[in-house]
Amino acid sequence: MPETVRAVVFEGGLQVIERQPPAAGPDEAVIRLRLGGLCNTDLELVRGYQEFRGTLGHEFVGEVVAGPQGWLGARVVGEINVGCNTCDWCRRGAPNHCRRRRVLGIADYDGAFADLFRLPVANLHRVPPNIADEEAVFTEPLAAACQVLESAHIRPGERVVLLGAGKLGLLTAQVLGLLGCDLAVIVRHERQARMLAGWGLQPVRRDDLRDGEADVVVDCTGTQEGLRDALRLVRARGTLVLKSTYADPATVDLAPLVVNEVRVVGSRCGPFGAALRLLERRLVDVLPLIEARYPLAEAVEAFARAAQPGTLKVLLTP
Amino acid sequence: MPETVRAVVFEGGLQVIERQPPAAGPDEAVIRLRLGGLCNTDLELVRGYQEFRGTLGHEFVGEVVAGPQGWLGARVVGEINVGCNTCDWCRRGAPNHCRRRRVLGIADYDGAFADLFRLPVANLHRVPPNIADEEAVFTEPLAAACQVLESAHIRPGERVVLLGAGKLGLLTAQVLGLLGCDLAVIVRHERQARMLAGWGLQPVRRDDLRDGEADVVVDCTGTQEGLRDALRLVRARGTLVLKSTYADPATVDLAPLVVNEVRVVGSRCGPFGAALRLLERRLVDVLPLIEARYPLAEAVEAFARAAQPGTLKVLLTP
Repeated sequence: MPETVRAVVFEGGLQVIERQPPAAGPDEAVIRLRLGGLCNTDLELVRGYQEFRGTLGHEFVGEVVAGPQGWLGARVVGEINVGCNTCDWCRRGAPNHCRRRRVLGIADYDGAFADLFRLPVANLHRVPPNIADEEAVFTEPLAAACQVLESAHIRPGERVVLLGAGKLGLLTAQVLGLLGCDLAVIVRHERQARMLAGWGLQPVRRDDLRDGEADVVVDCTGTQEGLRDALRLVRARGTLVLKSTYADPATVDLAPLVVNEVRVVGSRCGPFGAALRLLERRLVDVLPLIEARYPLAEAVEAFARAAQPGTLKVLLTP
Repeated sequence: MPETVRAVVFEGGLQVIERQPPAAGPDEAVIRLRLGGLCNTDLELVRGYQEFRGTLGHEFVGEVVAGPQGWLGARVVGEINVGCNTCDWCRRGAPNHCRRRRVLGIADYDGAFADLFRLPVANLHRVPPNIADEEAVFTEPLAAACQVLESAHIRPGERVVLLGAGKLGLLTAQVLGLLGCDLAVIVRHERQARMLAGWGLQPVRRDDLRDGEADVVVDCTGTQEGLRDALRLVRARGTLVLKSTYADPATVDLAPLVVNEVRVVGSRCGPFGAALRLLERRLVDVLPLIEARYPLAEAVEAFARAAQPGTLKVLLTP
């Protein structure tokens, strides 16, 4: 182990510091970062969301350098929720909803934007050899996209509308497209429209759609405006999936939801196994989403770049 | 219109006859066959299933030669259920479950294995130009495969086992694989195993699987043995999707279903739109399923070939 490692920390301000390498507890691995990915949640955390303090980062691909023998040298991605193993949700096999959960780089657990970091072995998934690092680093958000299909029963014959063609929206659109459903993705930018069309998906302008025409609406905007529009687009007795967290409390008229008997479901972290299978079979195309790469030492600049409107995925290299 | 057309009819015996061309009623189209596909249901009908009499055939791609102006010359596939338009199911928009339904080539409606045949315009779907006839003829069974995802909520994180890697099973396996779920397909023949592996799917032997390991089992065998095994494979509170009809009354011990609180759902005809989108985006590979082609005049030989065990799709050409 080196004497110090670099880490991207937020303590009211964002900086790259040197600190002691992490010490792994039992059932934990120490992981060397190969690539990290910036997510909108990271941007919200440095804006004060959840009053986060500590090392950032939850999207990564890395290599196990300390831990149980069978894992040494393995190229891995990792689930981000660290459960207590004792509460009712953990006993039910759903540590993602542990009542005392810590979350890698998000809540009470140091994140992955560091030369070395730790994570319970139970959270790790080996990356199949035909998945490149640049693809594997998308496993966590792709799993979150797959979670839409866990949260709601979306049928191949249904009209589905997706709002918010950003980083997560473009992954979610690809996952939904594999269902064969009649999918329309609302886009504002020509670049996203071209990307979607290249995948054989249907980019539309909001004006192309009628209110109430969607059996299912998936809102990836994370904005109040998006949520309001989603409520207009969904049909009576349809389903509205909330895919992004809303950083600001949403002031939304919920009356149409009651009158139209709309079902609303939330959706957060998802199945890593499914994401890896889709990447392995090359059913999802992630490389066009990469906007820029920055070395870990320039993480402050990377965050600034990622915060520019319309920016897609910014990666951190060690 | 020609004076006579050829048709493959079953009147206790199977034969190709000459008969008058069909006269289209209002809201109907006359279609010239481009390709027909033989299904297990056709084989069962000539074995006496449902005491069918008339022209066979419900899988087709054809060209509209008479009917409403806007449809003339269109290359089409067609949904097979012809509803009464007045019963509660038809009014609910689900003519597939019409209480007085007729079914193309299956029940009280002359089928598609003929030079010319008719179908309501409401049943037709235009075939996108990048889908070849040899692919389009699979639309009907591929829609039936998609119907598994309409009937049951199958999640990307689930372990799914498919039994019966025949014509319909190989299509269903591909559709399930697009979900990203952890899919195992039980195969007996090396040929099917190679085909599945080529698509990145997991062929397994029955002995590789433990009883109760599947969250979802999809039974495409249509046999009592398959159904019994499906009941052993599904976990407690899991889902069993019955995809094939069982020609013989099944004698099955249903006690495990009650004790293990298994949910059983049937699944029949499916969404043509979804099937066409999957074909158009080349997400499903149908051409390897083609076993042989016979001209319409040799339909009796085609049926004999299709009835040989292990035979995949047999096509009829005009």
